[in-house]
Amino acid sequence: MSDAYKKLAAHARKTENFESIARLAAWDQETYMPEGAASARADQMAAMAELIHNRETSNKLADLLAAAEADGAVKSDSRLSASVREFRHDFDRKIRLPADLVAEIARQQSASQQIWKKAREAADFEMFRPSLEKMIELTRRKAECYGIPDPGPAGEPTELYDALLEDYEPGARAADIQAVFDPLRKRLTDLLEDLHRGTPPDDTPLNIKIDADKQHKLGLLVLKAMGIDLNAARLDTTTHPFCEGLAPGDTRLTTRYRDERFTDALYGTMHEGGHGLYEQGLPKATHDGEPLAQAIGLGMHESQSRMWENFVGRSQAFWHWLLPHANQLFDGALSSYSPEDLYRATNTAKPSFIRVEADEATYNMHVMLRFEIERAVFKGDLAAKDIPAVWNEKMKAYLALDVPNDAKGCLQDVHWSFGLLGYFPTYTLGNLHAAQQFEAIREATPKLDDAMGEGDFSPVLAWTRRNIHAHGRQFRSNELCEQITGKPLSADPLMRHLEGKLRPVYGS
Amino acid sequence: MSDAYKKLAAHARKTENFESIARLAAWDQETYMPEGAASARADQMAAMAELIHNRETSNKLADLLAAAEADGAVKSDSRLSASVREFRHDFDRKIRLPADLVAEIARQQSASQQIWKKAREAADFEMFRPSLEKMIELTRRKAECYGIPDPGPAGEPTELYDALLEDYEPGARAADIQAVFDPLRKRLTDLLEDLHRGTPPDDTPLNIKIDADKQHKLGLLVLKAMGIDLNAARLDTTTHPFCEGLAPGDTRLTTRYRDERFTDALYGTMHEGGHGLYEQGLPKATHDGEPLAQAIGLGMHESQSRMWENFVGRSQAFWHWLLPHANQLFDGALSSYSPEDLYRATNTAKPSFIRVEADEATYNMHVMLRFEIERAVFKGDLAAKDIPAVWNEKMKAYLALDVPNDAKGCLQDVHWSFGLLGYFPTYTLGNLHAAQQFEAIREATPKLDDAMGEGDFSPVLAWTRRNIHAHGRQFRSNELCEQITGKPLSADPLMRHLEGKLRPVYGS
Repeated sequence: MSDAYKKLAAHARKTENFESIARLAAWDQETYMPEGAASARADQMAAMAELIHNRETSNKLADLLAAAEADGAVKSDSRLSASVREFRHDFDRKIRLPADLVAEIARQQSASQQIWKKAREAADFEMFRPSLEKMIELTRRKAECYGIPDPGPAGEPTELYDALLEDYEPGARAADIQAVFDPLRKRLTDLLEDLHRGTPPDDTPLNIKIDADKQHKLGLLVLKAMGIDLNAARLDTTTHPFCEGLAPGDTRLTTRYRDERFTDALYGTMHEGGHGLYEQGLPKATHDGEPLAQAIGLGMHESQSRMWENFVGRSQAFWHWLLPHANQLFDGALSSYSPEDLYRATNTAKPSFIRVEADEATYNMHVMLRFEIERAVFKGDLAAKDIPAVWNEKMKAYLALDVPNDAKGCLQDVHWSFGLLGYFPTYTLGNLHAAQQFEAIREATPKLDDAMGEGDFSPVLAWTRRNIHAHGRQFRSNELCEQITGKPLSADPLMRHLEGKLRPVYGS
Repeated sequence: MSDAYKKLAAHARKTENFESIARLAAWDQETYMPEGAASARADQMAAMAELIHNRETSNKLADLLAAAEADGAVKSDSRLSASVREFRHDFDRKIRLPADLVAEIARQQSASQQIWKKAREAADFEMFRPSLEKMIELTRRKAECYGIPDPGPAGEPTELYDALLEDYEPGARAADIQAVFDPLRKRLTDLLEDLHRGTPPDDTPLNIKIDADKQHKLGLLVLKAMGIDLNAARLDTTTHPFCEGLAPGDTRLTTRYRDERFTDALYGTMHEGGHGLYEQGLPKATHDGEPLAQAIGLGMHESQSRMWENFVGRSQAFWHWLLPHANQLFDGALSSYSPEDLYRATNTAKPSFIRVEADEATYNMHVMLRFEIERAVFKGDLAAKDIPAVWNEKMKAYLALDVPNDAKGCLQDVHWSFGLLGYFPTYTLGNLHAAQQFEAIREATPKLDDAMGEGDFSPVLAWTRRNIHAHGRQFRSNELCEQITGKPLSADPLMRHLEGKLRPVYGS
């Protein structure tokens, strides 16, 4: 093995040790930290962030990287050269950001988030507008530091917004995304119109009260069946559920329980469990800290969570297996229902204002709307002050809803106050990838539903382990998608999935 | 304020940020960390330890320290000059230890702890002896690096063992400790003989089954009454309970519950709560990372835990207050008992083999025995191979017990396998300080029992806040003891406490 690569990896592994500890502190902050510790924790996180940033932009790392790039043993090894390519990608981006811009963004994030909170409570966009304008300006400066990515191999044009996408899904381009989103939006609009004429399924089975302890037991049972190694993971409760791949052998899942609708936590847990399986499947034992043990990007990560939440968890086979277990854990509360009842109750499509409460189908409309707004902003076609009007117009066009106020409209998400621009499209990219992957899994597994109906989800896990998790960042998302599904990313599989499921449920 | 001091403090505060994060990782390891994370966590802790050690022994710190020492504004300020004295104390000790010795001790600790575990299981001292000899040798080398402390102001002699004590209770000297322990041991022996002729109290009230949830609620109720700010602290469960003062506003208490004897967790929680009050009382908001916001040493820390556990928690007044609350939380399980019944049941004195299970009186015998053995070893008067014989001899002399095997004898504690030599005496120093402080509190508070009987423990907290917590490390233990109790540390208050309580209980 290349000695130069080994040295580079050793440096990265030590940085990763510090990052793991910083992630632990972030996890603790959302789960167990006493309130009174908030200010001290901010100081600790800042100290860790500075330490990590210094290591990630150090001259020492530059030298190690240059040596690895020049090394013949790296050049002749496709995995190592891909790893070095990604090391370079990250290093070049990090050193392009001046320290004072990073500090200014961090300051603006806290300030802007506070103001956003108040503005949302007051449903007053004008209160938030100056902060948003400032954040857009800072994010534009950040994008300009990164620079517009080079055009594609066939001269495909790129744009400033692509520089932001690169932070969340390396290699993703706005034009490519738009080319998939456009047909998706059109077909979704048609589908929703048709469903509107059908009969919504009965959600009575979900209207039962189940206490958190029992829901927690159900969550653990499902995670175990999915293949989560619970000796190397935990499930805790928090306000905004997340999954943190802390370190080799240490994945932290979180969820939240509402007594009223047990499927909220169930699908939330399966979602985070999907993320967790990706984290547990990355080859961290051998490549911790290297791109080879890191996820490709947020879109691909989301594909793993959505697959378990929607493609597995909202299937007939899944309910066939789970219902008796759930009924037993819930002391018979579900005994008057059939798997089909649960399947129907958990497959609705109903336009609503709030993204995080949206169903599997309409969710994508919320995402596309945000993507279009962000892209227009960075093209210079849309000013912050005009966002509410455009938002409301699109909500009417895509979901036939009249937004009553900005709290239920463009003020609903925290993302923009944090400067997370370029992040939203990864949610729908995740759905698209999941659909396309799941078709490939179904094709490779003739009796998939029989297996799932008996609680055997190993075909799904084995396929994703082999085709996605094992590679780390060796390939980019689009490249990997073609490689493992045989086709470029398209709207077809997701639409086939939604139409094939929702039309029969709605009888339309 | 001195600019030189400010710079020194800023450097220390940043180091403290890293230490806080390392403490969080240690807390997590004992509470929530998945088992599978053990190896990654060891790497993370090693990276943090190296980072912290580098900061604590850096040339930059040496320069900042020298500048502060030379600064007139520091010299003329008694608190700042005490702080700089302690900064110097720590720095000088840290730079005296060669990195290879530190690494060798760390390696030997892991190895030696594994072997100790097996040896204890097999009750086979010979299996452990080579590891123990190696650990004693390494600890001797460490002590020699530190050097024998200077003789006292009146020429009081010092010894090599003092160099080890200095790690746990700065300023403590073996000869001073022995001078207090000797009369304590004699008077304890007499007391135990007398009690042996009396009638042991009835412990029936403790023989009830109470589930962990209810015990946890009782623990929180008691912590709140003690004055713990639960907005800045948590109580979790663990195998070996501890208290970690993580950061300003962040104190983590742990306990463990056995269904069979609720007082184990109750007193364990009060013990850690006492440590927690010290941590919460240190002026961390203004002096985080400086000696002014650090505890004097383990003995003084232990005085705070023992005071709440034994002097408050095992008093008649305490049970007068707590019993109705406990009875209510336990669904009436204690309704046939009086406060006096609980008081008697929780005040026994019965020689036993295992230190951690010993009662308030006999516990000190276990500690003195270990102190005498350690001191003899470092004087060169006792070889490791002869420890079992000396141990058993002393158990016979002090507690009239025949040790059946080394698992119940000199193999029972983990400390020596870790090289924690010089640590044990701080347990009894804690009891002695607690007794002497509690007499001072009683003297300053005419109606102390009336207040405690109504659940008002504020006189105890206020006195310790003002006299101990607020000072950080401005004074050394012995100095502070004289200053706040008017007398040097002695065995009298502890013996008055034990005799005044146990003789009436035993009717002897």
